[in-house]
Amino acid sequence: MKFAIYLPPDSEGKKNPVIYWLSGLTCTEQNFITKSGAQKYAAEHNVIIVCPDTSPRCNIPGEDESYDFGTGAGFYVDATVKPWNTHYKMYSYVTQELPEVIHANFPIDPEKQSIMGHSMGGHGALVCYLRNPGKYCSVSAFAPICHPSQSPWGRKALTGYLGDTGDAGIPDEWKKYDATLLVAKFDGQLADILIDQGDSDEFLKAGQLTPEKFVQACKEAQVPVILNMREGYDHSYYYIATFIEDHIKHHVKYLRS
Amino acid sequence: MKFAIYLPPDSEGKKNPVIYWLSGLTCTEQNFITKSGAQKYAAEHNVIIVCPDTSPRCNIPGEDESYDFGTGAGFYVDATVKPWNTHYKMYSYVTQELPEVIHANFPIDPEKQSIMGHSMGGHGALVCYLRNPGKYCSVSAFAPICHPSQSPWGRKALTGYLGDTGDAGIPDEWKKYDATLLVAKFDGQLADILIDQGDSDEFLKAGQLTPEKFVQACKEAQVPVILNMREGYDHSYYYIATFIEDHIKHHVKYLRS
Repeated sequence: MKFAIYLPPDSEGKKNPVIYWLSGLTCTEQNFITKSGAQKYAAEHNVIIVCPDTSPRCNIPGEDESYDFGTGAGFYVDATVKPWNTHYKMYSYVTQELPEVIHANFPIDPEKQSIMGHSMGGHGALVCYLRNPGKYCSVSAFAPICHPSQSPWGRKALTGYLGDTGDAGIPDEWKKYDATLLVAKFDGQLADILIDQGDSDEFLKAGQLTPEKFVQACKEAQVPVILNMREGYDHSYYYIATFIEDHIKHHVKYLRS
Repeated sequence: MKFAIYLPPDSEGKKNPVIYWLSGLTCTEQNFITKSGAQKYAAEHNVIIVCPDTSPRCNIPGEDESYDFGTGAGFYVDATVKPWNTHYKMYSYVTQELPEVIHANFPIDPEKQSIMGHSMGGHGALVCYLRNPGKYCSVSAFAPICHPSQSPWGRKALTGYLGDTGDAGIPDEWKKYDATLLVAKFDGQLADILIDQGDSDEFLKAGQLTPEKFVQACKEAQVPVILNMREGYDHSYYYIATFIEDHIKHHVKYLRS
């Protein structure tokens, strides 16, 4: 597995907070580090940024057949269905294996980590945060897939990696990976959850993202959430680059407190 | 020919200055617009940015054989040697044809244009500026090929597009495209020429860039030049993204005066 890492200039002999970035469908570990311009703000605030890949790349037959399942589309779940359950363990990789590698090799403060992501990676960031109270100081997401059990992308991925729903409603395995369902049971810290969404995003219009359902679930669970709707912005990295400074500052507020 | 263009938010019913960006070897019209993060500063200062491609892409036999000649490597010259002289007219394209297309289709102020570039494109920007006094309000370059008649990249390109030197010294055709030779005859406006160079740039060490020779020629010709050496920086777009704000501000100083 490859990852990208940015170390701020003052990394010599000093431990800094780390923010994990989870990318969306079709991405590798390179997209964010190449296109977001986040390094400028990470340098200003002395935070490390780590960007994992979005799936294993292990030559499973059928892995490359579609852009939204298999390669580039691990969905940050631990697959239970053959043949994916041998290597497609992205949830464990992102929450456990990768942080251990980072901790062992780079000057991070393991008590100060946050997580953010985009689209499929926004879903991943919300799930990692909501399932692990206290592990991450804060979370933010650009255009996240908020309710994958009800979204076309999400249903395809959860069916393929975790098995079909049959007629019995939402399976328990699916509920582990749906932020809108997880937030009802969340009893973690009271950091605001930051959601960013372009209102001209074609995938918002297609019902893939449904931030309004997540915000409603947060309100019902009394979990503080900020939803920033951005007029005229789409789903692209240009949109991410425009607002990444806000997200870095959001995380720094909690990482440095 | 493809180009990328960025229009700032206040472009409705208003004419803004334009900065042309010329990319380096292997690039297309996409690299700068995807990786530089310049949009943030162009938006702040209400300038338009236009990024042409780096060569024709016209299926001439041999066009794709090497990274530093042919496709992606037009060197911003008007070729005189067959078969390149049919389509490889990048100097005319960048200084005349493309500005006409931009002027006819976008809200630019044709009196307010500047030019900048990187590596091969830094060479191109300096040549376009020095050969056309008054046409551009200002020029800047990241890691430019300052003296192509004496650099391996430059000699290969000038030989291929303009013909061999033989034994008679530097041909007149080559002199039209060598900033260090052109500056001696320059009698344009007194805007500072801004050169930026990373001191860990592998191509600086390999003698491809030679900013010191250009600065020496500027001093002899009493042309004002600023050379910013950047400690630890290489030849990459990460380096460009770090300092692009300085360059936009440099151009705005002249474009808005």
